[in-house]
Amino acid sequence: MEDGLKIAIIGAGSGYTPEIVEGFIKTYNQMPVDELWFVDIEAGKEKLEAVAALSKRIIKKSQKPMQIISTFDRRKALEGADFVLTQFRVGQLTAREKDENIPLNYDTIGQETNGPGELFKAFRTIPVMIDIADEMAELCPDAWLVNFANPAGMLSEAVLNHTSWKRMVSICNGPLLIKQRIAAALEVDIERLFVEIVGLNHLVFAKQILLDGKDVTNKVVRMVAEGVKRVDNPGVSDWDADFLVGLNMIPMSYLEYYWKSSEVLEHEKEAAANEGSRAVVAKRLEKELFETYRDETLSETPEILKNRGGSGYSEAACGLIYSLYNDQQDIQTVNVQNNGAIENLPDEAVVEVNCVITNNGPIPLTTGKLPSAINGIIQAMKAYEQVACEAAVTGNYQRAMVAMTINPLVSGDKEAKAMLDELLLAHEEFLPQFDLQHLKED
Amino acid sequence: MEDGLKIAIIGAGSGYTPEIVEGFIKTYNQMPVDELWFVDIEAGKEKLEAVAALSKRIIKKSQKPMQIISTFDRRKALEGADFVLTQFRVGQLTAREKDENIPLNYDTIGQETNGPGELFKAFRTIPVMIDIADEMAELCPDAWLVNFANPAGMLSEAVLNHTSWKRMVSICNGPLLIKQRIAAALEVDIERLFVEIVGLNHLVFAKQILLDGKDVTNKVVRMVAEGVKRVDNPGVSDWDADFLVGLNMIPMSYLEYYWKSSEVLEHEKEAAANEGSRAVVAKRLEKELFETYRDETLSETPEILKNRGGSGYSEAACGLIYSLYNDQQDIQTVNVQNNGAIENLPDEAVVEVNCVITNNGPIPLTTGKLPSAINGIIQAMKAYEQVACEAAVTGNYQRAMVAMTINPLVSGDKEAKAMLDELLLAHEEFLPQFDLQHLKED
Amino acid sequence: MEDGLKIAIIGAGSGYTPEIVEGFIKTYNQMPVDELWFVDIEAGKEKLEAVAALSKRIIKKSQKPMQIISTFDRRKALEGADFVLTQFRVGQLTAREKDENIPLNYDTIGQETNGPGELFKAFRTIPVMIDIADEMAELCPDAWLVNFANPAGMLSEAVLNHTSWKRMVSICNGPLLIKQRIAAALEVDIERLFVEIVGLNHLVFAKQILLDGKDVTNKVVRMVAEGVKRVDNPGVSDWDADFLVGLNMIPMSYLEYYWKSSEVLEHEKEAAANEGSRAVVAKRLEKELFETYRDETLSETPEILKNRGGSGYSEAACGLIYSLYNDQQDIQTVNVQNNGAIENLPDEAVVEVNCVITNNGPIPLTTGKLPSAINGIIQAMKAYEQVACEAAVTGNYQRAMVAMTINPLVSGDKEAKAMLDELLLAHEEFLPQFDLQHLKED
Amino acid sequence: MEDGLKIAIIGAGSGYTPEIVEGFIKTYNQMPVDELWFVDIEAGKEKLEAVAALSKRIIKKSQKPMQIISTFDRRKALEGADFVLTQFRVGQLTAREKDENIPLNYDTIGQETNGPGELFKAFRTIPVMIDIADEMAELCPDAWLVNFANPAGMLSEAVLNHTSWKRMVSICNGPLLIKQRIAAALEVDIERLFVEIVGLNHLVFAKQILLDGKDVTNKVVRMVAEGVKRVDNPGVSDWDADFLVGLNMIPMSYLEYYWKSSEVLEHEKEAAANEGSRAVVAKRLEKELFETYRDETLSETPEILKNRGGSGYSEAACGLIYSLYNDQQDIQTVNVQNNGAIENLPDEAVVEVNCVITNNGPIPLTTGKLPSAINGIIQAMKAYEQVACEAAVTGNYQRAMVAMTINPLVSGDKEAKAMLDELLLAHEEFLPQFDLQHLKED
Repeated sequence: MEDGLKIAIIGAGSGYTPEIVEGFIKTYNQMPVDELWFVDIEAGKEKLEAVAALSKRIIKKSQKPMQIISTFDRRKALEGADFVLTQFRVGQLTAREKDENIPLNYDTIGQETNGPGELFKAFRTIPVMIDIADEMAELCPDAWLVNFANPAGMLSEAVLNHTSWKRMVSICNGPLLIKQRIAAALEVDIERLFVEIVGLNHLVFAKQILLDGKDVTNKVVRMVAEGVKRVDNPGVSDWDADFLVGLNMIPMSYLEYYWKSSEVLEHEKEAAANEGSRAVVAKRLEKELFETYRDETLSETPEILKNRGGSGYSEAACGLIYSLYNDQQDIQTVNVQNNGAIENLPDEAVVEVNCVITNNGPIPLTTGKLPSAINGIIQAMKAYEQVACEAAVTGNYQRAMVAMTINPLVSGDKEAKAMLDELLLAHEEFLPQFDLQHLKED
Repeated sequence: MEDGLKIAIIGAGSGYTPEIVEGFIKTYNQMPVDELWFVDIEAGKEKLEAVAALSKRIIKKSQKPMQIISTFDRRKALEGADFVLTQFRVGQLTAREKDENIPLNYDTIGQETNGPGELFKAFRTIPVMIDIADEMAELCPDAWLVNFANPAGMLSEAVLNHTSWKRMVSICNGPLLIKQRIAAALEVDIERLFVEIVGLNHLVFAKQILLDGKDVTNKVVRMVAEGVKRVDNPGVSDWDADFLVGLNMIPMSYLEYYWKSSEVLEHEKEAAANEGSRAVVAKRLEKELFETYRDETLSETPEILKNRGGSGYSEAACGLIYSLYNDQQDIQTVNVQNNGAIENLPDEAVVEVNCVITNNGPIPLTTGKLPSAINGIIQAMKAYEQVACEAAVTGNYQRAMVAMTINPLVSGDKEAKAMLDELLLAHEEFLPQFDLQHLKED
Repeated sequence: MEDGLKIAIIGAGSGYTPEIVEGFIKTYNQMPVDELWFVDIEAGKEKLEAVAALSKRIIKKSQKPMQIISTFDRRKALEGADFVLTQFRVGQLTAREKDENIPLNYDTIGQETNGPGELFKAFRTIPVMIDIADEMAELCPDAWLVNFANPAGMLSEAVLNHTSWKRMVSICNGPLLIKQRIAAALEVDIERLFVEIVGLNHLVFAKQILLDGKDVTNKVVRMVAEGVKRVDNPGVSDWDADFLVGLNMIPMSYLEYYWKSSEVLEHEKEAAANEGSRAVVAKRLEKELFETYRDETLSETPEILKNRGGSGYSEAACGLIYSLYNDQQDIQTVNVQNNGAIENLPDEAVVEVNCVITNNGPIPLTTGKLPSAINGIIQAMKAYEQVACEAAVTGNYQRAMVAMTINPLVSGDKEAKAMLDELLLAHEEFLPQFDLQHLKED
Repeated sequence: MEDGLKIAIIGAGSGYTPEIVEGFIKTYNQMPVDELWFVDIEAGKEKLEAVAALSKRIIKKSQKPMQIISTFDRRKALEGADFVLTQFRVGQLTAREKDENIPLNYDTIGQETNGPGELFKAFRTIPVMIDIADEMAELCPDAWLVNFANPAGMLSEAVLNHTSWKRMVSICNGPLLIKQRIAAALEVDIERLFVEIVGLNHLVFAKQILLDGKDVTNKVVRMVAEGVKRVDNPGVSDWDADFLVGLNMIPMSYLEYYWKSSEVLEHEKEAAANEGSRAVVAKRLEKELFETYRDETLSETPEILKNRGGSGYSEAACGLIYSLYNDQQDIQTVNVQNNGAIENLPDEAVVEVNCVITNNGPIPLTTGKLPSAINGIIQAMKAYEQVACEAAVTGNYQRAMVAMTINPLVSGDKEAKAMLDELLLAHEEFLPQFDLQHLKED
């Protein structure tokens, strides 16, 4: 790696890409990224061009010798790459719209990283991710696959357990946000905190919070319970104070899908009736964003990007790549195979925990056994993910039906069957692994 | 144990007691039960008298030298007992009615062995069961506590993990019914079957079915999926065929509370509107039953008893006591501490699995790791049970709130709080461990 | 299995075979063995003929319709067999003599089921046993392989973990002998005892002893410690009383190889100088035995057989086959994959523990965690066995060197190297998996 | 901790103490140690004074405002301390001499950190260490106990599992030496290496060696096997090359006690006959060292200290304290409770593994399952340690006998008994927990 690095970004047409470019510029002296290969599919050509153009302007302004190469040829981009970033969205926002709307028709939460919506996002994305892993084994076997496409945890679960590829780390901005907010709540510098994060992607808990080595978990929990401070994404409503004190941990906001199901469903229904689903809102925001990007005088990421909800993603991703490259041996919260970190889960299961980031990959820190209060939901979701990944890889209809039914957000086998069939047909073009003949004959 | 056995039955006023008496008569020559102590509380005096009178007539007819002693003094009954049977119901059917009705008002399943209803049945019963265990340690330390009061699994979980008493086995008729129905479906003698039962009380699965040593799991699953046969209690509706084939196991019917939640809720609401809750129906049946019992010409259990839904309970209980007494070393499915039987669960957790019944207690058979498809719900429920037992023992309000919220049948922390508070106040007289002052001040 | 059973015995020329024939005669009415195929290699022709002739006379006297077919064609014998018994000895007693003598030259215990001698018995036998397993998969896939060739535990370890064959049970007379002697010591009927046996083949402990369900472990341990009774094979000397009381379990006599190493070594050296090694003694006994067998008036097993040290083997083997065939669901101590029975050991590791014997094979009973006092030696031996099996299967010289060095009876890497090389060359004809070229060039 | 730190050193009369003082001077600006309390027993008065005088001269030269207070009153030293360092030796070198010589008389390795010698060092030291832990709980509950007295691993095992004190870290120079030597062998800066260290104190392995993130384990193993380089303390002889390649890990030199037992024993016997045991040599070296110390012109640690074999201890200890104080979050190899780091060992067992050092203590990194080749010896030693600690704490003679017998270096129960009794009597004054009456009556 003496020379500059070659980095491939799959799904580079994403509006977040310029942020990543800025991230690499910032650390150029410690990590000389010389070639940035922007990969996307032809359907995303227009967005890819806009992003590439803006990125070039940003680089030019920075005066770093970084080069951007846009391509539809993934193999060319992967060849000899040092890092491969994946942030693509199979079926784009249109598919997301279906993931969100169809479940709602069955009185079920429609969301792209939870419930039936997530299941289908996984069904569409896993086969592509496995192809990329296979290609990397051939074209850049020493590279790291840094994924922040969703469902991030399941994508790692599928690749790490259904292929021989091991150099993959999925990352989410959630843990970083929790830490930042706890620091803000305590009004201390984040460096003084050590937060023990345990769980699965989109299902983590701040189990223990240390400030200068002293346990302040109780204190933070009470601050939040008493409504003095918020330490997570604002969700539909605050956690019940007694519940939170009984838990004595800070759950990330996505737990509301499980522990505030009825409220979330109500909220989604209202939103769908008014502003449209999240996908519709996202489409609108994206449209505005790309209009800004096309402004040829723009040579930095615009303010508007911050409002899209992916805040911290680029920061987390660049930080991870930096530490992998430089053997930083700092602690970051990423998705890796468990290997004993959470004792209640099997070794091979992908978990989101604190890891030391070395140049040979992340090494999870031990966290012992999960407390009962959170063990139930974590086990339930991991078991679901395992069945879901198996169905995604094999295209087995009956196993897909099991995955759908055992998902805690689904209210019964009948609803599961109806949603499964409707979503399979709706996303058919992205689901080559499933044989849908029997659904069409009926 | 050379002389005849002394057996104490706590909650002897139950309508099922005469069946147990008949069971002991049947095996008198192999297990000479000489003294049957019938224990109940004063509020149950009338029923206790009716049951004792009928039981005496049954014994007289049998010509066995068995003696029945009715008493309100539990300690006297326990002193020197060989077996203690517990089948009491704290708060009787009136409390059950509240367990069933209050959750329904919050669009939540109301049931005495699942959801909020079960939680409160546990809160009321665990302190009493712990008292009994403590008294046994003092008054009959070599006796076995054979429990079939509900929630049977949680009562064992609480006693075995929160006291030093270890000689307790809880038993449910569910596993026996599954085996009987599989045998009926295959049209074979039950002796030719070996059914691997795994899970928790009210949450078991027939994971593997062997007929003469050959694996017929697939065959049975397909018979059920195709609707040829039923192998479980009739529930609200048949399992979806694809789901069942994907699962490749037979779930007991109570799984419908989790995998047919919406249907069950609808069904309960309708039933409540028409015939009343299960408790109301049970009250009516009980009234009829005791009218029959008072007929002084009756000297056997009447037909009507069969319709009450507890079929097989007495058979299971007597069979267990018989094997414990005679070191039968046969295989029965009972609730014991896991000790490695289900590898995914901790050693101390109470599970419902196949055991060899020796005169030193049941020894669980190994079952290996749970398949993912059922591991999720089993883990979720065991984790919930652990928190619930802790709350029941300590009377900690916040932990009770955690238990209620993480129960898979509860749809959010707000509903949890409302149900918790309403049920605490409704059952106050039976919940001395909780301090409810703050609920009254509001 | 409606018709009579076909049983193949590999290594049928063994002197013990007539005992097995007698065993099958005894249970003929419950298990109709019609064809007994006696398989051996041509080098063993003479012994095979003698055994077959005696066996035929025994059968004739019994008037059972059993047929004996002797053959050198193993495949013919396996075809359609219901049970396959293996009791062969690769290299016969001459190889055993080397296993015993060569280590002695390096001041190391020389023994066929412990130390370097066992390692080479494993190296010679495992490839043959794997061939048999492969042939069974082809020729009699529903049959059970019941092995009592040594090293029994390692042969199961190798077959069950290095082939896809799962229908194998290895059995040793050790556990049965322990139970019989404890019963004798207590002067009670063996049926009244429940002995919890845990460990590995040739390395088991009676961890808990129940008499009529009461724990009498302490009592038995003290009887043995005080020299009142012996409950195991007489070894070189009694266990130190304080050691035994501190252990509070009964170790089988082979533990003396590890906990009386110096004494055993002294004893072996003396014996070798006087009467010769065990192999030499066994050869002499075998010669006498076969002279008896050739007496054409003999139609039962002679007294002299009892003195050979394999007492109880046939009883154990026939008892196992009987229970497998008849789904007896009784408890026997056999070698099976752990599957959680001993929590400290991995699932796939072969252990010797109490199992319920069903017609689908043995199901281990849970035993929880091993006490520290015995966990060390059991772990050390299992780890050694795993490396040894790997070396036996792959023929990897360096891994063989690791196995030899980490064996607790070997005193250093230098001695390990010298013994390894000398034994490899001495047994070369039976070790096709190893490339010994480099040893010859030196 | 705003003000300067108070550090107590128990056993401050050790010749190594001045090195530690130098260590604290070096990092004074990042960790202001203002008070160093030197604690020893009256018998060590002379040495304590010499060490204190030299330390004061060293500090004076450094011009740091550090103060040294010598005392025999341990409680005064502990009161309000920030760190407590333990490096005492109960019974001093005279006791060590017995630990080394008595076993030799029984043809058993005599060594202070292995075999019977270590067992008695543990028996003498554990009660004192437990007293210190109890006093810290009372007098300085927020302090860390940093131990480098031996047997370091067992002392942590005893304190962490037999008291409620959790703030203890034991440290050994072994892991650091291995890393330094691997770096030297590869001729690279140690910063470029990541060495996965696993095992127990004095029983660790370099399981994986990464250079700039690339796995070079194979390469290093072959370099060592081929004799090109040494990467551990020179022991009695090099590891057999085939053994090492088969192992594919680097064992620390103390493994020679188990895998070169006969050679080590020979070597010890010779040494005892010539130069005397290690204790005798150490006494001589110590005498020379203290003569140097008394030279009042000396104001730095003399060259001669390097030859004593404790090289790196002070470096390791100061480094650990530095990281604990400054929340350095770097990786160091220390003795902590396992908590899942090595999956084959129980949670509570003390292991020596890589940890992230935070200001709330070390957090172990996951290492997964131990390879079979080293799992055996590690399990055997941990099981032995558990029994030994129990005997040390309870003074139970029979459990002491079990510990002695199951130690892999002891050749049988008879030798165990003889050594146990002789050592108990020899060390009687330091073993108040044992009742030796029965040994004197004989």
